[in-house]
Amino acid sequence: MAAERLVVIGADATGMSAASQARRRRGPDDLEIVVFERGRHTSYSACGIPYWISGQVSGADALVARTAQEHRSRGIDLRLGTEVTEIDVAGRRVRTRDADGGGEAWHRFDQLVIATGAVPVRPPVSGIDAPGVYGVQTLGDGEAVLRGLERDGVRRAVVVGGGYIGVEMAEAMLRRGLSVTLLDRGEQPMSTLDPDMGLLVRKAMEGMGIEVVTGAEARAVLTGPDGRVRAVATDTGERPADLVVLGLGVRPDTELARAAGLPLGDAGGLLTDRAQRVRGHEGIWAGGDCVEVLNLVSGALQHIALGTHANKHGLVIGANIGGDYATFPGVVGTAVSKVCDVEIARSGLKESQARAAGLRYVTAVVESTSRAGYYPGAAPMTVKMLAERGSGRLLGVQIVGREGAAKRVDVAAVALTAGMTVEQMTALDLGYAPPFSPVWDPVLVAARKAAGAVR
Amino acid sequence: MAAERLVVIGADATGMSAASQARRRRGPDDLEIVVFERGRHTSYSACGIPYWISGQVSGADALVARTAQEHRSRGIDLRLGTEVTEIDVAGRRVRTRDADGGGEAWHRFDQLVIATGAVPVRPPVSGIDAPGVYGVQTLGDGEAVLRGLERDGVRRAVVVGGGYIGVEMAEAMLRRGLSVTLLDRGEQPMSTLDPDMGLLVRKAMEGMGIEVVTGAEARAVLTGPDGRVRAVATDTGERPADLVVLGLGVRPDTELARAAGLPLGDAGGLLTDRAQRVRGHEGIWAGGDCVEVLNLVSGALQHIALGTHANKHGLVIGANIGGDYATFPGVVGTAVSKVCDVEIARSGLKESQARAAGLRYVTAVVESTSRAGYYPGAAPMTVKMLAERGSGRLLGVQIVGREGAAKRVDVAAVALTAGMTVEQMTALDLGYAPPFSPVWDPVLVAARKAAGAVR
Repeated sequence: MAAERLVVIGADATGMSAASQARRRRGPDDLEIVVFERGRHTSYSACGIPYWISGQVSGADALVARTAQEHRSRGIDLRLGTEVTEIDVAGRRVRTRDADGGGEAWHRFDQLVIATGAVPVRPPVSGIDAPGVYGVQTLGDGEAVLRGLERDGVRRAVVVGGGYIGVEMAEAMLRRGLSVTLLDRGEQPMSTLDPDMGLLVRKAMEGMGIEVVTGAEARAVLTGPDGRVRAVATDTGERPADLVVLGLGVRPDTELARAAGLPLGDAGGLLTDRAQRVRGHEGIWAGGDCVEVLNLVSGALQHIALGTHANKHGLVIGANIGGDYATFPGVVGTAVSKVCDVEIARSGLKESQARAAGLRYVTAVVESTSRAGYYPGAAPMTVKMLAERGSGRLLGVQIVGREGAAKRVDVAAVALTAGMTVEQMTALDLGYAPPFSPVWDPVLVAARKAAGAVR
Repeated sequence: MAAERLVVIGADATGMSAASQARRRRGPDDLEIVVFERGRHTSYSACGIPYWISGQVSGADALVARTAQEHRSRGIDLRLGTEVTEIDVAGRRVRTRDADGGGEAWHRFDQLVIATGAVPVRPPVSGIDAPGVYGVQTLGDGEAVLRGLERDGVRRAVVVGGGYIGVEMAEAMLRRGLSVTLLDRGEQPMSTLDPDMGLLVRKAMEGMGIEVVTGAEARAVLTGPDGRVRAVATDTGERPADLVVLGLGVRPDTELARAAGLPLGDAGGLLTDRAQRVRGHEGIWAGGDCVEVLNLVSGALQHIALGTHANKHGLVIGANIGGDYATFPGVVGTAVSKVCDVEIARSGLKESQARAAGLRYVTAVVESTSRAGYYPGAAPMTVKMLAERGSGRLLGVQIVGREGAAKRVDVAAVALTAGMTVEQMTALDLGYAPPFSPVWDPVLVAARKAAGAVR
């Protein structure tokens, strides 16, 4: 029997996890695996780029989990610099073009994995393509920023967008010794938090010397006589800049899928079933930053670009192609980040998301510490909790604090997945010892207050 | 109507939480509250004593969460230095004796809270009461150890018992500049872990310069011509000691309850219902270190002396006496600790506990890191997971690592409470960003391996 043929589009987390997992289960005589990647790198951590730029990570190589050569040695036919330009769903084939402008070719597939990832949002303003304006999505972007930082006279950075990438890049620029302005069009930075919690992040950033400008969109990038960026024009005036970083987030890269007539959701991501199969398309799979995921708390689809989901999708797809059975049940919207020593975390729904989902809720906000109050290094922490009115079901948690704050959100992530009530959470047997927690863990303090509000 | 009268025996976590919570709900005209405490302190953190002795916490005052005066100002009649010597269940009264040898008296109660705590296990060997041998249970014990450390020529400490208190005191003695020997009669220290995980703790302690002697019980405390301790005799020879710390754990202090005919379990702790009412005794409540708790994973009763349970019990009792409704569903056996920079955590059942509960299981042990491998400070971590055969239900987790290891056990604590399978856990949406976790959190890596073993 001739081998079945698996074609994978995109050689990052989802694509290479799927390929590797399928290969572990099916040998080359049974399954031929071809991966097309338009870039030069495989399996790299885009989330690590800010820390490379900041100087905390030594080089791009450190961000590559597995090289092309390692993948090839495992029996995967990996073709870098090869862009897929068309998916012919009915004909079960994809068309490729060499990145160096070389030839085009068609390649048949029996199974197809679409792992095309996401592309950074670039505001459609004048000057956005000027030298000195950088995205932070690919290793090539990282190299470009680092070259930009080496130029003479680069002292002022403007970061456009106050989300995860934005705040992480603000820290990186600060560590590089630049004066930093963060622009956000919202009421507060970190719009994945409620504004009251975002305000805590803003104050902490201002305490670090970062200028935070909110309610202000970038209207134009202004250039000097040399054609390079010199300022960002906003609703509230010009902000001088020798270097501009775009941290406006990403959108699913689904042009190929759209052209092929595959189903997309409201956020532009591919729609899949629980096994990560593209809806209604046997043998076509998708995962990672190019798909929409089910939020188990709201019941709604969302686009969340996050390496941990991408890896899980790849594992599920590879297991299914490999003849096993695996599913991805959905997410609860967990995210963690930090700006210097300020840690930020959230899981579940914030207030506006709860309202949009038709949920009515109570809120509780508490102040606590990361360790017993008397233990050295005990750091303050604010925890906000949302619980459903009536049922008392946990709907969401947001945490802003210092060391030991962010990963506490994992307790909420599991409780949300299990559908626990805040009353049930008050009895959770969380780890207690003075170096690690007050006798009432901050999450339990919040649960107690929320349970009181429900009653 | 005359006020109802609440008598509380013991003014630490359970007793004072119960009193405070009852007082918040019922005023002095409705509920008279009298607390008898034989010692001199209230509401102190016994768990903090090792860190006071080590010098990391400035003084005993820092360990007192709320002073007697603060409690009294809230309308609680708190009597220090007053020991309860008898509970007359049928007569609804208790007998007290002043600690200074003063008078005895009977006091009637309508509601009684028994919060007598625990007493340290003292092996019945000769010399155990010699000067230079210390327990670590009360603030008085802490003061005694500190005075002992100030004596001339105190250079060698022997810690008897390698459990939580033992390893924490080993660290404290090391920080005080002593050479330290830890004695444990088991195969490895930290017998709440399986021996393979205990071995990791042992190796780490040895790497810090602590001499760890296992399979060796203390047979006698040997004294010098001055009557003070000079060595500990063990099965494997004498260990010189200028100072001996007893870290053999504690047993419920239930002599009063036993004499009163109240129901005790196999571990000697009071038996209660879900509302923390002593079984079969309306109006008599108990909680904290003197009761047995239900382990939700094994279905068996256990004695676990831990401040976090004691506080929860107090809250439940106080709410119920106050006219609200609250229950304590049970524990999953979570505990965290550390020795210098080595963190130790466990939740659920270890192998011998699973076997004793009639459960059959698979195990998975994985090595991972606390942060993305490329991020500065990424520290190694070993995670062991037990899952039930067939069902795949999580049964237990043990973690030994460095910074960021211990509190990861909270994910397991919630999953155990929710009855999750390891397969379900592989999809958990835990917080991911390079400073906080690899893209697969170590707990998820273990869950994947355990799920594979179940299949």
